[in-house]
Amino acid sequence: MHHEDIPEPAALEPGTLRILPIGGLGEIGRNMAVFEFDGSLLIVDCGVLFPEESQPGVDLILPDFSPIADRLEDVVAIVLTHGHEDHIGAVPYLLRMRPDIPIFGSTLTLAFIRAKLTEHRISPELREVSDREKVEIGPFGLEFLAVTHSIPDAMAVAITTPAGRVLHTGDFKVDQLPLDSRVTDLNGFARLGDEGVDILMIDSTNAEVPGFIPSERDIMPVLDNVFAKAQGRVIVASFASHVHRIQQIIDMAVEHKRKIAFVGRSMVRNMHIARDLGFLRIPEGTLVSADDLANLPDDKAVLICTGSQGEPMAVLSRIANRDHAISVGPSDTVVLASSLIPGNENAVNRVINGLTRLGATVVHKGNALVHVSGHASAGELRFVYNLVKPRYVLPVHGEWRHLVANAKVAESVGIDSRKILLIDDGVSVDLTDHRAVVAGYTPVGFVYVDGSSIGDITEASLKDRRVLGEEGFISIVAVVDIVAGKVVAGPEIHERGFGEEVLADGVDEVTAKVREALEQALADGIEDAHDLQQRMRRVVGRWVNATHRRRPMIVPVVVEA
Amino acid sequence: MHHEDIPEPAALEPGTLRILPIGGLGEIGRNMAVFEFDGSLLIVDCGVLFPEESQPGVDLILPDFSPIADRLEDVVAIVLTHGHEDHIGAVPYLLRMRPDIPIFGSTLTLAFIRAKLTEHRISPELREVSDREKVEIGPFGLEFLAVTHSIPDAMAVAITTPAGRVLHTGDFKVDQLPLDSRVTDLNGFARLGDEGVDILMIDSTNAEVPGFIPSERDIMPVLDNVFAKAQGRVIVASFASHVHRIQQIIDMAVEHKRKIAFVGRSMVRNMHIARDLGFLRIPEGTLVSADDLANLPDDKAVLICTGSQGEPMAVLSRIANRDHAISVGPSDTVVLASSLIPGNENAVNRVINGLTRLGATVVHKGNALVHVSGHASAGELRFVYNLVKPRYVLPVHGEWRHLVANAKVAESVGIDSRKILLIDDGVSVDLTDHRAVVAGYTPVGFVYVDGSSIGDITEASLKDRRVLGEEGFISIVAVVDIVAGKVVAGPEIHERGFGEEVLADGVDEVTAKVREALEQALADGIEDAHDLQQRMRRVVGRWVNATHRRRPMIVPVVVEA
Repeated sequence: MHHEDIPEPAALEPGTLRILPIGGLGEIGRNMAVFEFDGSLLIVDCGVLFPEESQPGVDLILPDFSPIADRLEDVVAIVLTHGHEDHIGAVPYLLRMRPDIPIFGSTLTLAFIRAKLTEHRISPELREVSDREKVEIGPFGLEFLAVTHSIPDAMAVAITTPAGRVLHTGDFKVDQLPLDSRVTDLNGFARLGDEGVDILMIDSTNAEVPGFIPSERDIMPVLDNVFAKAQGRVIVASFASHVHRIQQIIDMAVEHKRKIAFVGRSMVRNMHIARDLGFLRIPEGTLVSADDLANLPDDKAVLICTGSQGEPMAVLSRIANRDHAISVGPSDTVVLASSLIPGNENAVNRVINGLTRLGATVVHKGNALVHVSGHASAGELRFVYNLVKPRYVLPVHGEWRHLVANAKVAESVGIDSRKILLIDDGVSVDLTDHRAVVAGYTPVGFVYVDGSSIGDITEASLKDRRVLGEEGFISIVAVVDIVAGKVVAGPEIHERGFGEEVLADGVDEVTAKVREALEQALADGIEDAHDLQQRMRRVVGRWVNATHRRRPMIVPVVVEA
Repeated sequence: MHHEDIPEPAALEPGTLRILPIGGLGEIGRNMAVFEFDGSLLIVDCGVLFPEESQPGVDLILPDFSPIADRLEDVVAIVLTHGHEDHIGAVPYLLRMRPDIPIFGSTLTLAFIRAKLTEHRISPELREVSDREKVEIGPFGLEFLAVTHSIPDAMAVAITTPAGRVLHTGDFKVDQLPLDSRVTDLNGFARLGDEGVDILMIDSTNAEVPGFIPSERDIMPVLDNVFAKAQGRVIVASFASHVHRIQQIIDMAVEHKRKIAFVGRSMVRNMHIARDLGFLRIPEGTLVSADDLANLPDDKAVLICTGSQGEPMAVLSRIANRDHAISVGPSDTVVLASSLIPGNENAVNRVINGLTRLGATVVHKGNALVHVSGHASAGELRFVYNLVKPRYVLPVHGEWRHLVANAKVAESVGIDSRKILLIDDGVSVDLTDHRAVVAGYTPVGFVYVDGSSIGDITEASLKDRRVLGEEGFISIVAVVDIVAGKVVAGPEIHERGFGEEVLADGVDEVTAKVREALEQALADGIEDAHDLQQRMRRVVGRWVNATHRRRPMIVPVVVEA
């Protein structure tokens, strides 16, 4: 259903629970859902989305807070399901508007959000909850349930109101052999299922993937083999929040009598948090500084760093580019123990080629099982559907293709397709007396963070950037005395990104044409600078199209003297 | 080996064959190799490379012809191994410099290059050769051998000179069940191997892939299943040169009593060429126009179109974007019967999401075997190494990672690693009396085509585009009377892509700062416009960094009145 066909929702009736997903439906990232009951609002997750190439220069994309901006005093809590950026990254931007909203989450999740908020100079109200803990907040009865994911201490949350019960899985998978033995709480899911779940909001990220995701532990023998074969250093790049992946690297380092060092700001910060809280176990004497590691023989060293996505400024990219104090050579082994986020293929490819050229052996998910996903695939989703037996399904966390795939998985276990709520960001669902209906569409957009500006970058600016980035610009400046009807100075022509040499030959020709057009316009009595600029634009645009078959941005400037 | 460590090659001695790969080594595309013997030059392939996101706005990248630019009269022939753009696309640009170079190739290859050259208004000298045909051209004895690839009528070429023999595979795979029953001529490879091959130049594209590529025919049952299930139209997007893939679609259409239409300029053109030459068999009455197809019931229609890579202007993208006369709905099935070229992931993803949102069922290589690669994987490469038993191996056609992987495959069958020539574009190899050595490095660069300009776009322009595309620009214009030492008009400030609203609040502030700096500079006796501009740039740059934490391009313009 296209949301433009849906009217705005009616005012909320007492006794009805309204669910408004603000982000994460129709995209992978900026997950955020608002639950409203009897005047109180509860927020589940508040993450950021990373821009793609059609959003050039944007640092981050936030959920659009406008539907709740004038109701922040009604927010009773923010619940964070886990500590990933796409679930917690936008919290500082929300708290700028009201800093004292209580935040509920697990130990590690709260430690990560605390570190982030400290950087933003915000002292939050944090309320730690544990697995199976029940909390009443305003009209919402919450119960937190353990789930496995690619970060420890992730949780699903059941939200119970007089209108009915919603189970929100957060991001999850059903790993039966997690490193910390904290399995997804299928017992809890089963109990809730038996008691009755009205709406299951369920992670769609991997719904297109058939079968089951291998266990995190299945990576271990592969890593063991990599370490056994490695002649020189082992350099591992992974996500800075993937505590269990890093744990396996550390275990392997210990097994193969190597020392480790962390490199990269976010990796160092997060791993210290995880270690302090007991989520990461590093035997005494194993962790050394990067400097001390450099003094060890190569075959005693393991470097754990960021840059698995080919981010140009991250450690691994700089090593591959020979732009880092750490240099790799033919005896070294580099492991990209991470997924490959769509859109990063070329960047990662450049890193792999760079490292290969330096002679290193590069191990990555394309040639070895050094990564498993953190999201439930179709086989796992079926277990959850059959345990929870939801009255309605609301697929969340995915692009449209993933939401549709999740709907198909639900149908495959017998859920009536009319009970599957396939909706987009901004489309709200009302639950009244265990019956759910689509309530309406509240306009939500993309909120771009760029430098210190939030929300001021418009689609028009992005369109300008796309044109500038493809073709560059030609600017033409003329100083005009409009009253006297004459060109006082210029026109002068400049370019950036168009090609200095390409323009050089034609400067005199196009300048003369513009001058002629300007003088004609002034003679015709044109007195409006904007009008004069339009004429300049047309002359330059036609000339450049005819002579160069190009369409750079043309920027005419008339300065009135 | 990094080519910067290699000196330029010495003058070529008589009796030595020099091989200079100009493109295709260290990249996938713009394949071109130059063979020189006793003053004569032979060119094998002359293709284009498609730009990636770090080369914004570039249309095409050509091989750098500069090493042969002043020796075009010595070129005795261009041999084209097959009709793909990355092997023939740069021929028109080379022929502009000397149009009468004879071109050798198979029937279909020459038909494709003829069509291309006609568009460039060039009448070439074409010499058709057939499988197993031997030709003497100057000092080069050529023999052409059939290979399978993702386009029919592809060939390898053996080049024999008194210095020794080179076998160049072109792009190939070893499909044992090709649709046209024209298998890779392993008998020919074996005979040459027994006679002695000095250097094997061998396609590396899929050397990282273990095992064997499925046969093109293996797609058939999958397509049969798709057609059997399809309720409404079947829309297939594929490469416009993949004649055998299209043949299978046509065969399925006939089997399921549907008519077909081709949509998209390149698809229509190429399929007519292939049909006229007997490479594509379309039963009478099966092919109709797109208009006639639209009048048929949906379950009788198959549309074959371009756009499998998410190219924004291609048919399929426009359909997905609801910007095409053809609209798809819930009963329709769309098949992306193609590879996913790295870098196009997001674009293709947008198309899949768009089609899914319109309700269509989308079948692609991620969820069904609707594509097989055209390049030999490691298992196939081993067959060829063992048949040809080359004295030296020169991996070609691949990024560094692929060349290295191919070298490892060669080593795995017992080829001495010292006999494997792992080199880059521009590095030449000399073969004398059956012994090969690296001869030197001849500088070659990227030649960018952008609109009608060829080679005038520099790395500096691309860098400007990247900055403009990420951050936009702020320009500041002042009219200055330098003699009088005063600012006559302005400064005026403009932006594109920076954010009009972002700038708006600060216009007065920054304008005043620039005016002040200019007046100070003029009072200090600065008379150089460039110097004044630098001061303007500094003021604006500092201001924007301090207030917005951004780094747009700053374009200062001083107009002298």
